[in-house]
Amino acid sequence: MIPFVSRADVAEQTNWIEQLSAAMPNEVIVPLNDLTLEQRLQCDIAIVANPNPSDLLSLPSLKWVHSVWAGVERMLNELESPPFSIVRLIDENLSATMSEAVLAWTLYLHRDMPIYAKQQANTVWQQQPMVHAKDRRIGVLGLGELGRVSAQRLAANGFSVAGWSRHPKQIDGVECFYGEDGLTHLLKQTDILVCLLPLTKETQGLMGQQNLSFLPIGASLINFARGPVIDDEALLKKLETGDMSHAVLDVFVQEPLAQEHAYWKHDRVTVLPHISAPTHLVSASEIVAKNIKAYRLTGNIPPAVDLLRGY
Amino acid sequence: MIPFVSRADVAEQTNWIEQLSAAMPNEVIVPLNDLTLEQRLQCDIAIVANPNPSDLLSLPSLKWVHSVWAGVERMLNELESPPFSIVRLIDENLSATMSEAVLAWTLYLHRDMPIYAKQQANTVWQQQPMVHAKDRRIGVLGLGELGRVSAQRLAANGFSVAGWSRHPKQIDGVECFYGEDGLTHLLKQTDILVCLLPLTKETQGLMGQQNLSFLPIGASLINFARGPVIDDEALLKKLETGDMSHAVLDVFVQEPLAQEHAYWKHDRVTVLPHISAPTHLVSASEIVAKNIKAYRLTGNIPPAVDLLRGY
Repeated sequence: MIPFVSRADVAEQTNWIEQLSAAMPNEVIVPLNDLTLEQRLQCDIAIVANPNPSDLLSLPSLKWVHSVWAGVERMLNELESPPFSIVRLIDENLSATMSEAVLAWTLYLHRDMPIYAKQQANTVWQQQPMVHAKDRRIGVLGLGELGRVSAQRLAANGFSVAGWSRHPKQIDGVECFYGEDGLTHLLKQTDILVCLLPLTKETQGLMGQQNLSFLPIGASLINFARGPVIDDEALLKKLETGDMSHAVLDVFVQEPLAQEHAYWKHDRVTVLPHISAPTHLVSASEIVAKNIKAYRLTGNIPPAVDLLRGY
Repeated sequence: MIPFVSRADVAEQTNWIEQLSAAMPNEVIVPLNDLTLEQRLQCDIAIVANPNPSDLLSLPSLKWVHSVWAGVERMLNELESPPFSIVRLIDENLSATMSEAVLAWTLYLHRDMPIYAKQQANTVWQQQPMVHAKDRRIGVLGLGELGRVSAQRLAANGFSVAGWSRHPKQIDGVECFYGEDGLTHLLKQTDILVCLLPLTKETQGLMGQQNLSFLPIGASLINFARGPVIDDEALLKKLETGDMSHAVLDVFVQEPLAQEHAYWKHDRVTVLPHISAPTHLVSASEIVAKNIKAYRLTGNIPPAVDLLRGY
């Protein structure tokens, strides 16, 4: 008996339980509320999607939870020192989908789609100067799985790509920077900045007034990571002054983005409803099933999130 | 003495003559109007950009003209049987730029950017269903240099790609169709149709009511070829009924697109001002210079346009 623990609505929960059950027919997967008290006492695994922490703490035998989300920072923040391991979703399809989104919206900025949309709205026929991809410098923040695959895909499509991470990394075809000095260097040579950092204490508010100021005049930003990595006020100021030309934002401090937020109507902001790399139910369910099956056979918990590092 | 013959404005002519002169310092390149009558009688080469046919016929010794444009169908239409060879621009940078545009606007449709733009305008937060690239079927019409490179680039980025040409072709990773039956087959299995056909008597109006009807419900169209390949009225009808979901149009029967044209304000049409693959002055000038230098040495005219085929 494996409980599915989530804050999602019933329809979404039902979808998940259906897919997960199909992927592991030997397991019984049920909504948490369907468990008796006795069943709760026995559970050693739960499958979670943005769960309520108190729900998890009502399962005293829990050894580990498998998240169907890649980002688990909310769970980490809400559970001071969880008495169980947290395994997050690592889905190769997710890297493919994310790198596709990075490429799609980089091309969106590179080929001036926001400008041409404004021109169409005003019945203006005007060719913008053409820039070759090799002369467009893309900076990727965060070189984990998603960052690495995205940077390489941009390079394969002709862009000049650099990347930044906390610790030194090496990626073929990508100029890699690290540490605080490295970040300044990267920002100073970046036309389009792509943010793929995990949300941690170190990355919260990282792209604030000072760091945004290192970008060349006219630079753009794509945030496909987490909202709080960007200082919204600082970004809006840079867009107002024209120091920055455009921002593509898929993630926000509060989601859905509040109706009255300035981003919605800002003509230099593209608002997306958190769609850069949606979880694919079928492939995510198969990965979770594989990990749970291996655990049942060996008793080994899959590689878990490092609580100190935060991802 | 080589005349530059064009209908472009003085500023654009000056730019061209400057770049061309830099690329071949041994030649003297001048606007046609700067030639004396005697000089006109002697010219064996002209460099042209959408020239006035009567201007060319005023040069009786002309053996060949080098166009700085890839498309020369207007020159072919206006000159019944030109007494000189016509060499069009074949620029590898052009294939790279065009295939980049094809990828960019295919991703634009694939990742629902037109829908998200409408949602943002209406402050709507709503995730569209995710489709994997391998489940998105792209059909490329025209498998010349631009079509081949574009089809391969789409395939390299994970899409299911098929292509169509008049005569049989083979391209790795691309399902190739040909002839009239082949066109029907291709259209019936195409979610996003990319038009890269040359404009000839056969392709004029090719995408009319009947051929558009073979597309699955909800299909989209990208036209980066020439305006008259599409029947505008038939396309507008398909968009109105919802049989087709969107059209990205970069080329039109009349350019610039007339202010009052229905395309400008249509919310299922993206209007672009002929920017999919702009000629790059520097690289085009270098190619023209190389061809003229080779001619001066050998007396051989570079491969010219086949007047019967029309490209």
